[in-house]
Order: sequence, then C-alpha cells, then structure tokens
Amino acid sequence: MPIDPGAAARVDTGLLSPVSAGADAIVSDDAVVAALVRAEVALAQALQSVGAAPDAAVAGIERAAATLTIDASELAAEAVRDGNPVGAIVGRLRAGVADAETASWVHRGTTSQDILDTALAIVAQRAIGVVLGDLNRTIAALAGLAQRYRDTPAAARTLTQHAVPTTLGARFADWLIQVADARDELARCGLPSQLGGAAGTLAVLVEELGVEIASKVPAAFSQAAGLSWFDAPWHTRRTAITRLGDGLTRVTDALGRIAADVANLSRTEIAELSEGSGGGSTAMPQKRNPVRSVLIRSAALRAPSLAAGLHIAAANAIDERPDGAWHAEWPELRELLRLALGAAAHGALLSEGLTVDEAAVARNLRASNGLIMAERIMLSLGPFLGAPEVQRLIDRAAAGEDLATLLADEPALLGFDVGPILDPSGYIGFTGVLVDRAVARARPAA
Amino acid sequence: MPIDPGAAARVDTGLLSPVSAGADAIVSDDAVVAALVRAEVALAQALQSVGAAPDAAVAGIERAAATLTIDASELAAEAVRDGNPVGAIVGRLRAGVADAETASWVHRGTTSQDILDTALAIVAQRAIGVVLGDLNRTIAALAGLAQRYRDTPAAARTLTQHAVPTTLGARFADWLIQVADARDELARCGLPSQLGGAAGTLAVLVEELGVEIASKVPAAFSQAAGLSWFDAPWHTRRTAITRLGDGLTRVTDALGRIAADVANLSRTEIAELSEGSGGGSTAMPQKRNPVRSVLIRSAALRAPSLAAGLHIAAANAIDERPDGAWHAEWPELRELLRLALGAAAHGALLSEGLTVDEAAVARNLRASNGLIMAERIMLSLGPFLGAPEVQRLIDRAAAGEDLATLLADEPALLGFDVGPILDPSGYIGFTGVLVDRAVARARPAA
Amino acid sequence: MPIDPGAAARVDTGLLSPVSAGADAIVSDDAVVAALVRAEVALAQALQSVGAAPDAAVAGIERAAATLTIDASELAAEAVRDGNPVGAIVGRLRAGVADAETASWVHRGTTSQDILDTALAIVAQRAIGVVLGDLNRTIAALAGLAQRYRDTPAAARTLTQHAVPTTLGARFADWLIQVADARDELARCGLPSQLGGAAGTLAVLVEELGVEIASKVPAAFSQAAGLSWFDAPWHTRRTAITRLGDGLTRVTDALGRIAADVANLSRTEIAELSEGSGGGSTAMPQKRNPVRSVLIRSAALRAPSLAAGLHIAAANAIDERPDGAWHAEWPELRELLRLALGAAAHGALLSEGLTVDEAAVARNLRASNGLIMAERIMLSLGPFLGAPEVQRLIDRAAAGEDLATLLADEPALLGFDVGPILDPSGYIGFTGVLVDRAVARARPAA
Amino acid sequence: MPIDPGAAARVDTGLLSPVSAGADAIVSDDAVVAALVRAEVALAQALQSVGAAPDAAVAGIERAAATLTIDASELAAEAVRDGNPVGAIVGRLRAGVADAETASWVHRGTTSQDILDTALAIVAQRAIGVVLGDLNRTIAALAGLAQRYRDTPAAARTLTQHAVPTTLGARFADWLIQVADARDELARCGLPSQLGGAAGTLAVLVEELGVEIASKVPAAFSQAAGLSWFDAPWHTRRTAITRLGDGLTRVTDALGRIAADVANLSRTEIAELSEGSGGGSTAMPQKRNPVRSVLIRSAALRAPSLAAGLHIAAANAIDERPDGAWHAEWPELRELLRLALGAAAHGALLSEGLTVDEAAVARNLRASNGLIMAERIMLSLGPFLGAPEVQRLIDRAAAGEDLATLLADEPALLGFDVGPILDPSGYIGFTGVLVDRAVARARPAA
Repeated sequence: MPIDPGAAARVDTGLLSPVSAGADAIVSDDAVVAALVRAEVALAQALQSVGAAPDAAVAGIERAAATLTIDASELAAEAVRDGNPVGAIVGRLRAGVADAETASWVHRGTTSQDILDTALAIVAQRAIGVVLGDLNRTIAALAGLAQRYRDTPAAARTLTQHAVPTTLGARFADWLIQVADARDELARCGLPSQLGGAAGTLAVLVEELGVEIASKVPAAFSQAAGLSWFDAPWHTRRTAITRLGDGLTRVTDALGRIAADVANLSRTEIAELSEGSGGGSTAMPQKRNPVRSVLIRSAALRAPSLAAGLHIAAANAIDERPDGAWHAEWPELRELLRLALGAAAHGALLSEGLTVDEAAVARNLRASNGLIMAERIMLSLGPFLGAPEVQRLIDRAAAGEDLATLLADEPALLGFDVGPILDPSGYIGFTGVLVDRAVARARPAA
Repeated sequence: MPIDPGAAARVDTGLLSPVSAGADAIVSDDAVVAALVRAEVALAQALQSVGAAPDAAVAGIERAAATLTIDASELAAEAVRDGNPVGAIVGRLRAGVADAETASWVHRGTTSQDILDTALAIVAQRAIGVVLGDLNRTIAALAGLAQRYRDTPAAARTLTQHAVPTTLGARFADWLIQVADARDELARCGLPSQLGGAAGTLAVLVEELGVEIASKVPAAFSQAAGLSWFDAPWHTRRTAITRLGDGLTRVTDALGRIAADVANLSRTEIAELSEGSGGGSTAMPQKRNPVRSVLIRSAALRAPSLAAGLHIAAANAIDERPDGAWHAEWPELRELLRLALGAAAHGALLSEGLTVDEAAVARNLRASNGLIMAERIMLSLGPFLGAPEVQRLIDRAAAGEDLATLLADEPALLGFDVGPILDPSGYIGFTGVLVDRAVARARPAA
Repeated sequence: MPIDPGAAARVDTGLLSPVSAGADAIVSDDAVVAALVRAEVALAQALQSVGAAPDAAVAGIERAAATLTIDASELAAEAVRDGNPVGAIVGRLRAGVADAETASWVHRGTTSQDILDTALAIVAQRAIGVVLGDLNRTIAALAGLAQRYRDTPAAARTLTQHAVPTTLGARFADWLIQVADARDELARCGLPSQLGGAAGTLAVLVEELGVEIASKVPAAFSQAAGLSWFDAPWHTRRTAITRLGDGLTRVTDALGRIAADVANLSRTEIAELSEGSGGGSTAMPQKRNPVRSVLIRSAALRAPSLAAGLHIAAANAIDERPDGAWHAEWPELRELLRLALGAAAHGALLSEGLTVDEAAVARNLRASNGLIMAERIMLSLGPFLGAPEVQRLIDRAAAGEDLATLLADEPALLGFDVGPILDPSGYIGFTGVLVDRAVARARPAA
Repeated sequence: MPIDPGAAARVDTGLLSPVSAGADAIVSDDAVVAALVRAEVALAQALQSVGAAPDAAVAGIERAAATLTIDASELAAEAVRDGNPVGAIVGRLRAGVADAETASWVHRGTTSQDILDTALAIVAQRAIGVVLGDLNRTIAALAGLAQRYRDTPAAARTLTQHAVPTTLGARFADWLIQVADARDELARCGLPSQLGGAAGTLAVLVEELGVEIASKVPAAFSQAAGLSWFDAPWHTRRTAITRLGDGLTRVTDALGRIAADVANLSRTEIAELSEGSGGGSTAMPQKRNPVRSVLIRSAALRAPSLAAGLHIAAANAIDERPDGAWHAEWPELRELLRLALGAAAHGALLSEGLTVDEAAVARNLRASNGLIMAERIMLSLGPFLGAPEVQRLIDRAAAGEDLATLLADEPALLGFDVGPILDPSGYIGFTGVLVDRAVARARPAA
C-alpha cells in the first residue's frame, strides 16, 4: 500500500475528525457542489419571477442542473485557477444546457461570491436544522434527568474540591439551560442569501432591467433559494458569518462543558456517571471509555479558534472583496458546522444514554468525613461555639478525624443532636426551584 | 532611572495599548474595586428589601463603603492568596463598619464568584453604554457621509484590482449597516448579576430565610446593582460572558474593517480619504499617518483571539466552579471592553473627521484606461462585436492602450458613440437604493 | 442533483481550501491510512530487529500490509466507535495475515496512540520535505530578485504613507531572510515516533522481553519507521506537536507577509508588482487577480488560530491520555500541514513568476512632489534654513506645491543645487549591505 | 467610593490577573519606560563607540537619563497622539539635556520602532532570565520527586479511566522533561535589538557617517543595550516576536499541563497530591483549594490565543511598517511575558511544595477490584483460559465482583498463584529507565 495516494485520492473522509463521522456528509464537498448548482438555478428562477428570464431558459437550466453530475475532486482541482470553484461550475452548467440563449441566463448579472456565499448559506441552513433537532433531543433528555433527580443530593465541587451539597437535578438543570440558550441563539443565526454582482452594485441587472426591477431580484433570489431576505449585499460586511460561527461555538461550548463534566464524573474514583455505551481499547480489556464525551470535548476545544478565524477574516474584509479574508472563511465555517453537527449528534446520544450511579453519588457525598457540611456547621454552630473553635474542629476533621464524632464529643453541644445539621439533603438550598425554572425555560421558543 | 520599578509601580497604565488611552479608566482596576464594593452593598440592600437585613446594618455598610479607600495595588497583591480579590475586599469592608452585627451582613450568604461576576457586570454595563454612545456618533457621521456622497462614482476594488464603478455612498452605507448591526447586538449583551452562594444553591440564605424569601433575593440583588435579572446562577454556564465577548468583537470587526479601508484608501498612491488629524513621525516631517485607523486596526486584529479565550474558558467550566477557566476570563473580558472602548472612541472621531478628496476619487476612476468599464463593455458591445473581439480590445487596453480610442477606431462601431458606455456614473447600479435603505435601517432601534 | 450526497460521498476534496489543491494529497486520509499501516509494520520490524518477533511472522505482516486495500471512508465510519481509527486498522491487518501466530505480532505491546502519533509523524515528515523543497525554490527566486534589483530605489511605506526611499533589493532581501529562517526552523520540527504502550510504560514488552531488550524497541521502531529517535514516550507531553504547529505557522507567516505585500503592490494604483499568471473573474474580462497572493494570504490568516488549538490541547493533556485534547490535535495538525504545503507551493510559483514594473516603481517614487525626501531635506537644509522654515516648505509641498520648485525659489539657498539632495537613489542607506548579507545568510544550513 | 476613578487612576495593577501578581513589575509600564530611556542612551553610546557622537554629548544624555522621572500615565496619554510613546520620551530626554548639540544626539538617525522594539527586547530579556530561574527551580524539584518516587506504583489514567499501573516517578519524569524542553527553547528566544531608521535603510546614519561606519552602528547598539546582535532590521519580519511568543506559550503549556494534573489529582475523591499551601474560601472553612494550580492553569488557557495574535500580526506586517499589526503586538507580547513569569513563579513554589499522599496512591491503585491489571491478566492468562473467558471474568469484575476472587475460583487455574500477576508493582515496565533518562536529560544545557 503506497503512501502516495495519487491524484484521485480522497483527501478527507473524516478519518481524523471522528466526532463528526456520519454527520459531516451534510456539509461535504458534494453537498457544497449541489448547493452551488442550486444557487445558480435559484438565480435563474429569481430572474424569471421578476419577468426577466424566459420560462424556457429557466426550465432548461433546471433540467441541466437536475442531470448534471459533477465530481467534487475535479472541481477542487480547477478551483485553484480562479481561487474559487464557481467559474468551473458555471462552465459545466452552461455546457449542459441546450442553446446559447439559455446559457446566457446562467450566472446572469452575478459574481462568484454571490453564488458561493449563497451556497454556503444553503448548506449551513440544512446543517443548522439538524443541529437544532439534536439539541432538542438533548434538551428533552436533560429535562427528564433534571426532573428525575430533582432532589437527589450530590457533592458540589469548586476548584476541584468538595464544597457544599447540591443536587443532581440542579446540575442537569444548569446543563439544560445552557443547551437551550445555545439552541435559541443558533436558531437566529441562519445566513442570508447574497446577491450584488461584481462589486455589490447589481450594475448588470440594473443595466438590463432598470433599477426598480433589478432591486427586486435579491429578494426573489432569497425566496428561490429558500433563505432569509436581506437589504443589501454583504460581500465585505461579514457580520452574518461571524454570528453563525459564534452561534455554533456556543453550541460546542455548551456540549463541551457537559462533556467535561461527564468525563470527570466518570473517573474511576468518582464514578457517578457513565455513558450508556463505552468505547473499547486496543489493549486494555476492562476499559469503558467515555468516548462520546471525549469526542465532544475535542470539538469544544477546537471550535473557539476556528470562530476566531472568522472574526479575523471579518476585520480584514477590505475593499469590495478582500485579498484573502473571504477565502479564509470557507473552511473554518464548514469545519464549525461539522463540529456542531458532530457534537450535537453525540450530545443527544450521550444525554439519552447517561447512567447515574446513585450509590456512588451518595458515597462521594459522605467521603469527606462530613467536611462538605462545613459551611453549614460554621453557620449553625459558630454562634454557639465561636468561629475559631468551629474552625479548629474542621481542621481536625480535615486531618482525618470524623466530624460527626468530633461534634458529638464537644462539651458545649452536649445533648444537641447534630445529625440534622450534617445531613446534606437538608442543605440543598433552592435547587428545586432552579430545576423547575429550567425545565420551564428550556421549552422551545414559540 | 532604574529598570526595576519596585513594588509600588504602576503595572499597566495603557502605555502599550494606546488605542484605549483615556477610555480605559472606565474599566480600570479602580473601577473594578469600586464595582466590587458596590456589589457587596447591593447584596446588603437586597437582603434589606426582602426584609432580612436590618436597616441600621445596611446603612452602616453603605456608609463604610462610601468612605472606604482601597488601594488597587495592595488588593492585587492580596488577591493571589485566595486566587481572587474578593476576600480582601470583604475584610476591609467588615473592618470599616461599626459593629459585629453590621459586619455579619457583609457578604452574607454569598461567594467570591457572585461578587466578582457581578462587579464585572457593573463595569461592563458602564463600558457598553459608552461604546454605544460612540457607535451612535459614528453612525450619525457615516449616515451623513453616505447621503452626501450618495451618487459619487468611485472605483470598486476586488482582490486589490479595480473591478467596476461603485459609489462612495454605497461604501459608506455598507460601513454604516455594519456599525449599526454591531450596535444593536451589543445593546443586547449586558451581563446579568450573579448570586448563588458557594455552589449555586443559595443554601445559606435558604437556611436563614426559607426557600420562598431566599428565592427572591437574586432579583432584588439585580435591582440593587442596576443590572438585568436572571433565573439561575451561571457560575459555570458562561453563555453571557461569551455573548458579550463576541458582541464586543463584532464592534471591533466593524470598526476594524472600516479602519482597514480608510488606511488603504489613504495610501499615498490612492489618497481618496484622509483622517482629519494626522499623526506625526519622530523622523519624517512630511508624514500624516492615519493614526486612528492604525490604532483601531490594532484593536481589531487583537480582539478575536481574546474572544476565543472566553469560549475556551466556557468549554472548560467544569464542576460547580472550574479549576482555572473562570480565572482565565477576567483579563480577556476586560481587555475586550478596553479594545471596544478605544476602537469606538477613535471610530467616532475618525468618522466625524473623515475627509474625502473627490478629485483623487475621480482620478483613480479614470486611472485604468477605461478598463474599469470592461464588464459593461462586454455586456453592451459583446453582442455586436463578439465576445472574443471585445476581450481582444480589453487585453490591448490592459497592455497600455487607451480603451476609448480603441473603441473609437473599431470599424464595426463606426458612428456609434461609446462615450456613455464608458461613463462610470452611468454604471452604478442600485447604489442609491442601498444608501437610502442603509440610512433608514441604521436609526436606533426603538 | 440531490443535496444529500449519501454515505459514500467524498466529504472533503479540498474544494473549499483551494490554497492546497493538489498538495493536500500528501496529507490525505489515504496517506494517513497508509502511514497507519506502515507504523504497524514498523513495530513488527522493530520487534524482529531486537530478536523478539520471528522472521516469518514479520514477513507475513509485511505481505499483508503490501496487499491490503483499505477504504478510508469505511475506516472513518468505524473510527467513531473507539474514538480513533487504529482498532479498525488492526482488525483488518490481523484478518489479512495467514495464521494466529502472525496475527499475535500485529500491534504487539502497543496502544492506539503509539500508532496514530507515529503515523502522523510519518505523514508530517513527508509533508515537511515537500514544504522545504518549495521554500528552497522560493529562496532561490527571491535571492535572484534581491540581487537583480539590489540598488533600484523604491518608495518605502510606513503606516500606508510614503516614508523615505528604500530599494527593491532591500525589500526582496527582507522577504528572503524571513523565508530562510522559516525553512531553517521547520527543518528542525519533525515529529519523533511514539512508543509507550497503554500508558507509556511499555509494560507488555517489558513483561515479554525484559527491561533491557524492551527499552531498545522504541529506538528500533524509530529506525524502522524512518523517524527520529526519542528518549521517552510523549503521550501527554505534546511539545513536539506544538513545535511543529508553530514551525508551520512561521512558514505561512513568512509567505503570508510576502503575499500581503505583493497583493498590495499589485493594486491598480500602485502596480509595481504583478504575479506572472493572473486569475480571471466570472464577470469582469479585464481582471488579472493576484490569485496566488490571495490564496497564500488566506492560509496565513487561518494558520495562527489552528496552531493556537494545538497549544490549547497541549495545556489540557491531562492524565496519561487526555479526555479530548489528544483528539483535538489531529485535524488541526493536518490542516496546518495542508496550509503550509499549499502556501509553499504557491509561494514558489509566485516568487519565480513575480514581475517588476520598474517604470511604476520610479513613478511612485516621484509621486509625492518630492516629499519622500523630506527627512533628508530636514537633515541637510535644517542647519541652513532652520527647522521651522523647512517644515513650512514641506507643509506647502504637502498641500500640493512642488518641493523642488519651492527649494529652488528659496533665497537662502540661492546658487545651491538641491537636485542631488532630492535624488532618491542617493538616499538608500546601507540597503546594498543588507542585500549582500541576506543572500549569504539564506543559503541552506550545512 | 465613586465608580469613575478619574484620569489619574491606576488602569491595571494586576488585580484581575492574580497569576502574575508580584512578578509583573518586571514587565510593568515603568519597566517599559525605563527600557525606552535605556534604548535611547544605548543609541548615543553606540554612536560614541563608532566615533561619531562626542563624549560630552553622550555623557550629557546619560546624566539626563539617570535623573529623568517620567510618569508612565502621562506618557500613556501622550502616546495616542503619534500612536506610540517614543516621541514623548524623546521630547522629555531632549528637554533634559543641557544644550542643543547634546539634544541633537538624542534619537539620532533612528525611528520610533527601533526604540520601542529594542525597549521591549530589554524588558523581555530580563523577564526571560527570571522565568528561566524559576523553571530551573521547578526542574530541580521535579527531578527530586521523580527520583524519590522512582518506583512507587500508581494508577495510570487514560480517557479518565484507570488503565494500567505506572509509577509516580514516571509521571514526575514526564513533567520534568517537558519543563526542561520548555526552558531550553525559551533560552534561545531572546529578542535582538532593532536599528534601521525610518524604513530600515539607516539612511540618516549612512548620510552622516558613510556606509562603512553606519553599518557598524547596529552591532554597537546591540552591545550597548546588552542584547544579541543582528544582521538586518526586522521592522516587518517579525519572526523573533512569534518565536518568543511561542516559546513563552510552551512554558505555560508545560506548567499548565502539570497544573491540570495536580488539580485533578488533588480532587477530593482522588487526593493523591496536594499543594503545600492551600487557598481559602470566603464561605467554606474546610476548603484547601489548589490555588497555584488554578492560577497556572488560567495562564495556560489564555496564552495560546495571545500567541496566535502575534502570528496574525506577523502575517499582516505589510509595507515597511504596517498599519496596525505592529501596534497589535505590544500588549500581547507583554501579557505573554507576564503569564510566563506568573506561571513559572507559581510553578516553582508548586513543585517545591508538592505533597504526595502515598496511602491514597496505593488505595486508588486497588480501587478497581483489580481491573487495572486486566491487560496483564489477558496477556498472562489468555493463553491458558482463552481470551473470551478472560474477558468474561473481567466483565464480571467490572460489574462489581473482585477479580482476585474470581481468578482464585477459576478451575483452570487451580493451584496457580495469581497473586504476583495482580501485583501492580510488578507491572511498571521500563519506568525506572524513563526516570533515569529524564533526570539526566533535564540538566541545564552546557
């Protein structure tokens, strides 16, 4: 098996990005090619709808597009000539129609950027829909977990150390809100279509159709492409791109934080949570790795830098089309879509399969010799024993003695039952309220 | 002058961040200290408003806070002990009140993160207000420029090359929309207050006040601190932080892209724009540097990486308080506020002072021997001369001949006046519509 | 043409990363698969070389590897199960050998990470070699340009404004040094092989072969894989990865800065440089876009964020194999290799084809009414006329008057020939020395 | 206490960057101001050493510099005018000398960037020295730990799950190598001095001194400033800056990874390590937070994005001085120095104070019912029992049964003592070799 795979090699099948295996067909180069063709067709349809393009020509373009078979690898090789693949698409589409008149309505009055930005918007729209679906599954699963474990006390940890009790419900509820917020923001992050011609002036269409009709083409194009409408071309005003990148990163942030918690709470020594399905090892037969968490977390560690790349491009979007910043956007945006798709898919399966070991939760809560109740003890007993004396007892417990015994032996507390004070389930604050609010809040916006 | 400045030295006066000189006092350490104190006072006031804290104690805390003088440098030195400055603030505030009862209402039922997050929210709120004010000045100035130069033809440039004509108005309008969008998004990015106690359960307050009353304290706290309300603590759900970071970056993106255009269009060879006030050089007496653009651009190049840092922190916000990710947020968030403040301040002055050299604009438009009209020539004359012949003429013009002369000499065009075809002002598309839409859209949201 | 490409679709052919079209086959998934197989073979060979594995078994593995056909897409789909593709490779290789004894020597004593890290090292090694070759072509071309234009005066620009004269040679020499430095650093950035077993202890091999022989296997493995040797496993000590990422980014920095200069100096108004081959436009027949510069620049804008991702992963490489940070490295490292390959390939062609328009260079040098000589005028005439008077003359020239005429009319300079003072070619400092030093320095290190 | 601190406020005392409290005076604005002055003095001294500047003038400049008191805040306010603080420094220095002749030798033939880059090099040099000192302390401490615990078995964890045994010594040795590598690389990352005049041609000095003598000034300047020598100005060739940024990030990577391990291994449930000194909580009296780890980790999470900013700047270093990219470097570089200083200072204290709880280490090793020995059991007993049977026993142990008992009850193993197979201390591979190699390797390079 030679190392040089030759010209026809598959460049990237997702082998090194297992987080998005499967999901990434949605944003594959074949999907981009299909969307590029669809954008060209939508332009013809828009010109038809404003009364400019003849029905026969548009029908001819639609037919050609429906039967066109384009090899993404060949297209990629040609894209380097102009710096983007649109010219190569246009050539194929024109060659595919019957006559010159029809061919003249292909790519009419537009520019590469119009078509490529619109194609990416089409691809993004579909990907966003899939991500939202998976987030909703995650939300439903987390809402169920939050309600089921609404009042189950568990150790809260701050700076890696046991702090005070919380509940499993409160933790799940917090995850839930974050995912719901990420979903609600992403739902507002679709890209608009793009149409402005060579430099955003639509000069060709205005020349041919007059200002009044030409000004209607962008909206008609949006409708034909199934995208949102826009007021103005955005060739160098890349707000929509950064907004989508940030929105996708908020998705991986949310799921990545959950994954970090799951991976940690699955640690052999903690073992409160486990993924329903564990990943195996090539060497160690006992391993049940939290593979979904690991993959989600790999996405969450990567996404912020990619999103930064989109902002850097936006800030460098000079002139009426920039000298590199536009080209820098495409792979980062697509990779962010891929990471969100993958993280959301695994996130849904992770949430739906998550297993709680209640015994381990209870065991950990008791593991600190009662020290997890130290805040409450200081609060309750400080007024009686004095803060320094309480601190002294706590320090002894920290050194290994049992706090309940120390308190029972304390002369000043003779006859006082410290049991209730040391009961974590009595010190869970307003976590029930939090769960109820979160479940209510996470419902899809109307 | 020794290089070692000693312990009392000013660590960072903004000397190496000239973009935010002046504006950065709004987010200075003294401002943070004041906000930390204000957050502690707001907590006491919130406890008073729900009927928990006695009036006298709260008045005592307010008095102590009003007279407290805290040296930020000393506080910074102490902050390293606990990893954050809140403990040192609490100690000073408690020492400043008259009696133990009053002292007991300082920092009651809360945790360092509640106070620090809330203080940063207070600082951010003020900074956002200032940024929005400067963006509105920029918007007003750009709207004026867009209207004034609504129909002035100018060269549009794509991939650094003259493309087709556009108008100055269209360019200003595009800047305008981007700034207005950044403003509208930033206006929604304020941070909420934070209140949850040690691990987000409000256990201390619930212990003391019962769930019903304790659950009302967060809203009361928000009101006392002058911040927005929230449903739940967000100790490890850092959506609001990343949203603000992204919103600030969208501000520097927008202004940075304008600055890149201004710097470029100020080039000695282009000279279409100049900043009203030019920066000098220590060596070259003729220099009028576009210093505002340079400073804004320095901010725009830096902000994306800082915002990425906030997402990385968000994705690592493990447990109920993470082991480093929270601490990583503070300086990045503050620096982003600083960059947005500085970029917005310079952006307002830049927009208000921007000078257009209309003669240079017209000269550049003519500089390409008519080639900037090539698209239209192909469109108009292609049908008569055939595309290959038009391309041949264009290639000759590209090699140095004058396109108007070539066309005049073309036998097939005998008697045809190509003058109007070569007139850029007749090929500006729907730019007028764009200007009018942009000006309407940029008005502040109701 | 349906938008859903189906499961067998090519996910990423490079269509949206035209900068690395062609070059990216070197780092394609097929190349990774081949390297994974080669790493497994190298392990068997290493075990043979220390006397452990029987010759027949190793020959059997070599034979199986040579005839194995692995579909990267299928492997990618399986990789998600364990979180990485190694298990699936091992299964195929074991199935491909004749007997159980031979199969037992496949993947003996190793772990997924050993094989995957080593495979990426093999892929990186080949990519680095190609990049170095292209950088050497660039260096040769730039050295030629620097020597050819060693003393050609040209405008130096600071903060976008004409500053003082420099030479074309000095500019090319500066590019040259940066590329040579990037080459020399990259040459030291190869990845070592990886071998440590499940957790870096080589326990299986020690168990089977004893410490002494087992300790020799890593070096034998390095040799068999054609990689550098190492002292210790580096499963969570990711210095080599970040060093390579930084080294690759230094390549794109160097080429990206050149590309930014070329794109800018190709501006229609400046026009001092042009790429030998220009990219066309789908709409504008006159366009000769600096496509190579644009593509290189797109890579240079992207690489820093990707390299940051590697550092973030390195800082999170917890435990003996981290919960996501390792997985986050693969795609970023591969994409950095791709970007460096693409930038280097285009950089070589760009440097070799770069065309200088000496007339434009001379015209621009004269374009500022002599103001580009202001520093020298102040230096030379300040002592005679006084600095304020010189400044006054310079300000008048900046307002549009011709500086030579103003100086000729200056009474105090009556009879003094200011011509030589205003001659840029007499004010180029030690640029000749710089060129000579740079050309000497850029020669390949011995 | 008003929130608006007024113009004289301390902008940044390090309050929000506690990781570098104390250490950051080394890179404070006062240190930068001192270094700026020192750079100006070094230039005069260099001109003296080549025989150009008169002794009296240089002595006058030295005297003025020694007595000059410059308020960094005032300077910061002035820096915005020119975009950098050098002009304001020059003005003060010239005003501070006795006569015009002396003043004429201040800033002679140089430009702002020469002075500012050189000043940052001076500041960096000192900071690097301090960081290296702290890294050497860390290395000594880690070498001690590695040797002390050379053969102490401990659980190795991969993907958060117990994998196989390793030794504490191997873990410490791995940390050790990474810190030693980071030290050795950082030691090669000092910045050179910068001297080129307005656009890198040294034209003024060549005009006054001739090419031969002028060409010697840069080396003389380097010597006077105590910096390394250079061949050519590097105004827009920012390799040295990115190299330093990457080198500093490698320091925070190395320490950050250690901190992540320490924080994790300090978890209440794991408790194998603890920092010698624990951070307190404002609410929870039992807390002993791993504050040093948390602070180091906050630095490690931040540094990569800052270093990316330097590469972005390098790739945008257009012209002979760029329009923003240079200005974008200063704060990022300084912050990286600060983070490395802080991380190194805490890293030294952390390593020196690190406490190992051997009982906890042993307890965790036994915590998995023997499953941590599963790889060895499969290896040793697979041939006898068959892999499926061993896997069945391992799965039963994973479900809660004790593996030793299961094996003892296995009929096929009757009379076979499985005790040694289950002993972790007999399955630690070549960890002893690793420790010995690491300790040898970590010694300072000669």
